[in-house]
Amino acid sequence: MTDVKGDRSLAPHQQADPDMFLHITRRTEKGVYVSGAKAHQTGCINSHYLLVMPTMRLGENDKDYAVVGAVPVEASGITYIYGRQSCDSRSMETGDIDVGNATYGGQEAMVIFEDVFIPNNYLFMDGEYDYAATLVERFTAYHRRSYVCKCGLGDVLIGAAAEVADMNGVPKASHIKDKLVTMTHLNETIFATGIAASHRGYPTDSGAYLPDEMLANVCKHHVTKIPFEIGRLAQDLAGGLVSTLPSEADLRQEEIGPLLQKYLRGRDDVPTENRVRILRLIENLTMGRNAVGYLTESMHGAGSPQAQRIQIARAAQLNEKKTMARTLAGIETEADKPESTPTKDGYLGRVFDLDSPQEK
Amino acid sequence: MTDVKGDRSLAPHQQADPDMFLHITRRTEKGVYVSGAKAHQTGCINSHYLLVMPTMRLGENDKDYAVVGAVPVEASGITYIYGRQSCDSRSMETGDIDVGNATYGGQEAMVIFEDVFIPNNYLFMDGEYDYAATLVERFTAYHRRSYVCKCGLGDVLIGAAAEVADMNGVPKASHIKDKLVTMTHLNETIFATGIAASHRGYPTDSGAYLPDEMLANVCKHHVTKIPFEIGRLAQDLAGGLVSTLPSEADLRQEEIGPLLQKYLRGRDDVPTENRVRILRLIENLTMGRNAVGYLTESMHGAGSPQAQRIQIARAAQLNEKKTMARTLAGIETEADKPESTPTKDGYLGRVFDLDSPQEK
Amino acid sequence: MTDVKGDRSLAPHQQADPDMFLHITRRTEKGVYVSGAKAHQTGCINSHYLLVMPTMRLGENDKDYAVVGAVPVEASGITYIYGRQSCDSRSMETGDIDVGNATYGGQEAMVIFEDVFIPNNYLFMDGEYDYAATLVERFTAYHRRSYVCKCGLGDVLIGAAAEVADMNGVPKASHIKDKLVTMTHLNETIFATGIAASHRGYPTDSGAYLPDEMLANVCKHHVTKIPFEIGRLAQDLAGGLVSTLPSEADLRQEEIGPLLQKYLRGRDDVPTENRVRILRLIENLTMGRNAVGYLTESMHGAGSPQAQRIQIARAAQLNEKKTMARTLAGIETEADKPESTPTKDGYLGRVFDLDSPQEK
Amino acid sequence: MTDVKGDRSLAPHQQADPDMFLHITRRTEKGVYVSGAKAHQTGCINSHYLLVMPTMRLGENDKDYAVVGAVPVEASGITYIYGRQSCDSRSMETGDIDVGNATYGGQEAMVIFEDVFIPNNYLFMDGEYDYAATLVERFTAYHRRSYVCKCGLGDVLIGAAAEVADMNGVPKASHIKDKLVTMTHLNETIFATGIAASHRGYPTDSGAYLPDEMLANVCKHHVTKIPFEIGRLAQDLAGGLVSTLPSEADLRQEEIGPLLQKYLRGRDDVPTENRVRILRLIENLTMGRNAVGYLTESMHGAGSPQAQRIQIARAAQLNEKKTMARTLAGIETEADKPESTPTKDGYLGRVFDLDSPQEK
Repeated sequence: MTDVKGDRSLAPHQQADPDMFLHITRRTEKGVYVSGAKAHQTGCINSHYLLVMPTMRLGENDKDYAVVGAVPVEASGITYIYGRQSCDSRSMETGDIDVGNATYGGQEAMVIFEDVFIPNNYLFMDGEYDYAATLVERFTAYHRRSYVCKCGLGDVLIGAAAEVADMNGVPKASHIKDKLVTMTHLNETIFATGIAASHRGYPTDSGAYLPDEMLANVCKHHVTKIPFEIGRLAQDLAGGLVSTLPSEADLRQEEIGPLLQKYLRGRDDVPTENRVRILRLIENLTMGRNAVGYLTESMHGAGSPQAQRIQIARAAQLNEKKTMARTLAGIETEADKPESTPTKDGYLGRVFDLDSPQEK
Repeated sequence: MTDVKGDRSLAPHQQADPDMFLHITRRTEKGVYVSGAKAHQTGCINSHYLLVMPTMRLGENDKDYAVVGAVPVEASGITYIYGRQSCDSRSMETGDIDVGNATYGGQEAMVIFEDVFIPNNYLFMDGEYDYAATLVERFTAYHRRSYVCKCGLGDVLIGAAAEVADMNGVPKASHIKDKLVTMTHLNETIFATGIAASHRGYPTDSGAYLPDEMLANVCKHHVTKIPFEIGRLAQDLAGGLVSTLPSEADLRQEEIGPLLQKYLRGRDDVPTENRVRILRLIENLTMGRNAVGYLTESMHGAGSPQAQRIQIARAAQLNEKKTMARTLAGIETEADKPESTPTKDGYLGRVFDLDSPQEK
Repeated sequence: MTDVKGDRSLAPHQQADPDMFLHITRRTEKGVYVSGAKAHQTGCINSHYLLVMPTMRLGENDKDYAVVGAVPVEASGITYIYGRQSCDSRSMETGDIDVGNATYGGQEAMVIFEDVFIPNNYLFMDGEYDYAATLVERFTAYHRRSYVCKCGLGDVLIGAAAEVADMNGVPKASHIKDKLVTMTHLNETIFATGIAASHRGYPTDSGAYLPDEMLANVCKHHVTKIPFEIGRLAQDLAGGLVSTLPSEADLRQEEIGPLLQKYLRGRDDVPTENRVRILRLIENLTMGRNAVGYLTESMHGAGSPQAQRIQIARAAQLNEKKTMARTLAGIETEADKPESTPTKDGYLGRVFDLDSPQEK
Repeated sequence: MTDVKGDRSLAPHQQADPDMFLHITRRTEKGVYVSGAKAHQTGCINSHYLLVMPTMRLGENDKDYAVVGAVPVEASGITYIYGRQSCDSRSMETGDIDVGNATYGGQEAMVIFEDVFIPNNYLFMDGEYDYAATLVERFTAYHRRSYVCKCGLGDVLIGAAAEVADMNGVPKASHIKDKLVTMTHLNETIFATGIAASHRGYPTDSGAYLPDEMLANVCKHHVTKIPFEIGRLAQDLAGGLVSTLPSEADLRQEEIGPLLQKYLRGRDDVPTENRVRILRLIENLTMGRNAVGYLTESMHGAGSPQAQRIQIARAAQLNEKKTMARTLAGIETEADKPESTPTKDGYLGRVFDLDSPQEK
């Protein structure tokens, strides 16, 4: 979905280079050809098909940019350029400690399309620019709600922080217990707002359910902040070693290894290597390869913070709330009354179950 | 529920005065007599019956304090002492503006019991001290989840803030729109965490459903902070007039009134009195009578902040999270492994739907 | 200084009513006559003279609004309209407890000028509209730095919160000690940023010293948030009684008084009245008369939050910082270089003591 | 200074391995021999001499741990073990872009002492365990105040974030300007609290000046949080590319290079490589080698957050503040009065210039 966008102050058709947004370059009877590039595609190389979609509201002049279609990942004309991640080359080193998490990781790639063919039967939007905004909003409602996944990473980081405090010998210090509660409270806030977005979902006329867009955006907006705070607290509990630990090679080295075994020990009954492993996991999640997914992607995936704020503003129904305030304040004049439409269609209508499917 | 507690570092039976917690003073064949006092009883005077319950974990020596029973509000031996609220005497003044919200308010009273009789058929706990903690935890799960009600007050305050910005002539300033989004994001976080606590509710053996206690505590803990931040932002948007406005009496006064009509005007098409009314509503919710309910009660009702943190710590299952972290870090030794019991009984078991009713 | 402003989206000369900003209505050989109103004037009634000044940047069409002059408080044509404060009428009740702080308080009034005469020798600006912005900026640098005064109120509130925790019997609970540290850290941040603004002050050509405007704005901007957080924490430590306490009249009443003496007692060696008095002081500072000064005035006095953000943006010298970043990033092309002027004149010049008076 | 500490719940002499804290192992007429290890020594390899000091309060049984002395970095018996940093191996790659900051970086090492000799004339403490706490407190007052250095890194990161917003074509979006103001406000808070700690410094009897310990701790405590928030906001302004950028090798590659030149372009007049360089600098400061210094070291250097909270609590003079509150609340009884000593010696004495050097 994410076009590279070029100069962000300009619409697709205004860009100096038309390829800054993916678009149709040529049509045949059998289908269309598209060019452009999609950035930050998480997991694209593990997929079978790519589905291209517009990334934002389009106008009449952006008609060629209003294209949705599917292509196999190995289609002719596609180039994948693998993104670097923090500490990526550790994955190629000997050993399994310094990498932090030897089993799991991810990848992002830039996907470049040069006259890639989409056959008609895989073409789902072709020029209907006025539906682009709705498409993006509905897609992002699903996508933003799905960011509840980050609380799984949060669980691991909370566990790692609790474990390192234990290994350091200070699991009972009140400030440590308190920080673990803060981390948990924040992490479960992501979980709860995501769950609520689904619980308050509602069907379109087709019968397909959409998550509640207000709550989906509330969820994702928390995700742009909370993992950073959990990460900060994990580094607090870890202690400075999390970023000054020597290498695994040194730990295994004949002369230096025993010195490190001795001096990196925390609580006496904990093997030094265990402590090192937990610290490297925390480094991995807060600065290394998985920090890309836990922090930066939490910020920008499914839309950067400002994108959620725009959607929250749209769903907020301020005029309805102004009317409530006026009534309670005893304002009876109509002259300056806001144009309020407390109907069943908006967020408040759903909250108060005005004509909701649950109530029928 | 809330006993007056005396010296909070001491258990009920250790207090210098035994009446600091409500307790049984005498038994007859027909029932028991209780003495003590319950503080902060919101709405007690509008009720038909009072239900007394212990307010915390009890030990063997606190047996007489383990009492649950119902009494009619007019039972002999009960004294109600009405609490003062900020700006309470404005309700007795002439006019309906300065009070801020002339229609709605609330009251808290201290309820003093002096040998009040509870008949056996209205006596639901009598000495079972070891159930007191469970009773309190279950009750507070319901009670804390119910604090989602504060987002209704939040809606009104957001509406009032949006309306006053409008009346001041600056509704489109980006920082004002941004603050309204922040207020909405915070307010909906309360709503979402409360809804999630119910959605994740589960039945006890009796068939009665309990809200999820982790999420109910997450919800209430947000309520101890978010209304204060929404209140602060409402005062920001209101401008300084919210606490320097002259009295309604001056507004109605023959000579001063016209001066105020002229100088308190904001946008030209908004009647001055409307602006004054909205500002008084904001004062009412952030400093006046309804601030008691919106702020202080949000802090302490259903348990002060630390009470939720204790419950969140209990539900957090840190050992299970430590085990996840150890696995991902590649720790294989068993020596220092935490005693983890990833069973269906705890919060994580419910999250992963291990044997949950929904999955059956 | 603070004009009533009318429709805030319009300049002084664009207002429907010209009196929304104080301005010259008529000139004679001996002086000028001014009309308009100044809102929120703290302490004006205790003063000997009033000094009127413009409240914002003025343009050529606002020439009559560019007026600075002094008038005695009792000058002909001035009307003072006293502002209400939260809980103001408690000051007129019998007793000295419910008022919270029987000795100190403040007042704000609206000051209305109807053709008030300013003689030439007390007229310090007369039409020099292009100096209005500089005048306001310099004045607000002093005024914003002076808001360091709020940490005196913070000290009292921290003391009251510590004292009530003590009286409740829980001064040693780790979460209480931790909250007192947070309150202190926040309060001293106000103090430190204010002190730094003075320490980094510098002389104008006249020899008069100005506080550093960046740091003065940093200080005041903290003041728009920190007292609200300290107030929230004080209410946390106080417990719910802070807003459900019965009245002093009940405490003194023959029948009810002894009941309250008994049930409002905390730690056994603390007289009940002492505990009530501390709670009323906390109410006074967080919801009552002194909350007007500690909270609302902290928000809006010397400029609302957004006003400081504008000044911080002006002083931030982003182009100089961009140039630093480009150098460290190894960017050598000049094409797109920002227009940076790392001179002695701006904030960074003063920080690095380029030509500062201290260095000479 | 920082010993490796072993089990943090135990004093030095209680550790299973006595070398967990550096200590005297043997004495001769000419000096002492010490063993142990110092962790996280920033820049140690660039130094001429090492100065060893105790890292915390010591008791009578810790006498051998009360040692201060200087040794040349090349002294016999010292082993340096270099710490890994996030993305460290990028410094060994070809090219100068991916490293983020090709010119500046730092290093931390663990320094192991095995019977290292300290001659008597370089031995400054030898067994005076009861001075260890004072030594640590005074040293940390200097050290914590010195963390004001992090606002230099903050300036660079603010500049980089402003520059990347510019290159993306959106420097004027209100939310971007607003975030740059927030970053500046936070960054200058570090500067101001550090400056204030020095300005409020005072001489010991020797004439040597100490920074004010309250304000030095307030400064460092901000440093444990603010860089993380500035870093988060920089990643927000950077966009997702900050962690999905392809490698410099790809940028230079014959076939892929031109594709990247085309698709990574932002604003049309900005060379793509410039944009890449700024993004890599942001990665370097928020996840890479300099994140170690800007984030993790800001957290733990000169003492982890809890260490500052302990010092703030010590300096807070709560009893003096309780007394202020009691006076204003009208409490006249002496019975339960806190033991207040409002003397010239504490922080408040210095604030109110009771007998301060400035006042003499």
